[in-house]
Amino acid sequence: MLDTKVLQDYIRTIPDFPHEGIMFRDVTTLFQDPRGFRLAVDQLLAPFVGQRIDMVAGLEARGFILGGAVAHQLSKGFVPIRKKGKLPAATIEQEYELEYGSATVEIHDDALKPGDKVLLVDDLLATGGTAEAGIKLIERLGAEVVGCAFVVDLPEIGGRKRLEDMGMAVHALCHYAGA
Amino acid sequence: MLDTKVLQDYIRTIPDFPHEGIMFRDVTTLFQDPRGFRLAVDQLLAPFVGQRIDMVAGLEARGFILGGAVAHQLSKGFVPIRKKGKLPAATIEQEYELEYGSATVEIHDDALKPGDKVLLVDDLLATGGTAEAGIKLIERLGAEVVGCAFVVDLPEIGGRKRLEDMGMAVHALCHYAGA
Repeated sequence: MLDTKVLQDYIRTIPDFPHEGIMFRDVTTLFQDPRGFRLAVDQLLAPFVGQRIDMVAGLEARGFILGGAVAHQLSKGFVPIRKKGKLPAATIEQEYELEYGSATVEIHDDALKPGDKVLLVDDLLATGGTAEAGIKLIERLGAEVVGCAFVVDLPEIGGRKRLEDMGMAVHALCHYAGA
Repeated sequence: MLDTKVLQDYIRTIPDFPHEGIMFRDVTTLFQDPRGFRLAVDQLLAPFVGQRIDMVAGLEARGFILGGAVAHQLSKGFVPIRKKGKLPAATIEQEYELEYGSATVEIHDDALKPGDKVLLVDDLLATGGTAEAGIKLIERLGAEVVGCAFVVDLPEIGGRKRLEDMGMAVHALCHYAGA
């Protein structure tokens, strides 16, 4: 029997997680399906075929799952961008705003070389705050972000516009209205 | 020029992280090297060639990087085992002891089917507490752990013995004396 599921069919929606009123787009059902997971990696990379990519960077923690697979498919290395305090060697850090307060992400200061072409990967684009901080970290090391790739985009929350306003090529596999 | 580096050459040691007296084995330098990352995935899977594996499970957070790549190489799905409160749908949870206090990990209760053969992956085996909790979660869902694969093993801390005493096949790519 032909499997006619498209990528979005593998993603489930959990109402009211982590807070009331949030429709949480859960990609774990995509990642746990062999066909779905491979489809996600293939579609994520489709617009970048033929482009030079030296390194894949992923945002903690779901971006690690996808980023590990994407780096493996490209036969490239993987660089984690982590919450403050998790990386053991010398880092540079970047603060970003949250709805209430702020947060900080870090990258090892020797994780990238000047001129490296980096693909930034995460599961979901909402406000784009973490992604923007990740881009800044990559650029502060002298490397260049060739694209930002997400499984899910919630364009009404503004992340896509925010990253495109930075001059980024933003690629997402599916889009949901609302938060 | 022939690259004669072995896997262990890609791992760096950070003294006194996260606490004084700890020699932290940092696998980010392995993962960020294209050859090192692929070597790790290949060597991690070597003992399981020809065995049935239906799913790869990874422990948060560094186990996600490796697990994503391993699942991709096998063309299988990936299941995250996460710290409490991070998974959006219905979960089962398992508590385990830490040096001071305890912690809890969770898995989605529909992440595995009874009879599924699961490879559990993480970057480092120390006390084995998280791995043991992960194994219990997998088994409580009726699935079977075919092996536990780690990049780094610190056998003197006792994790390997703990998992082998549970009847597990433990595979690690390199071993360090002491903590």
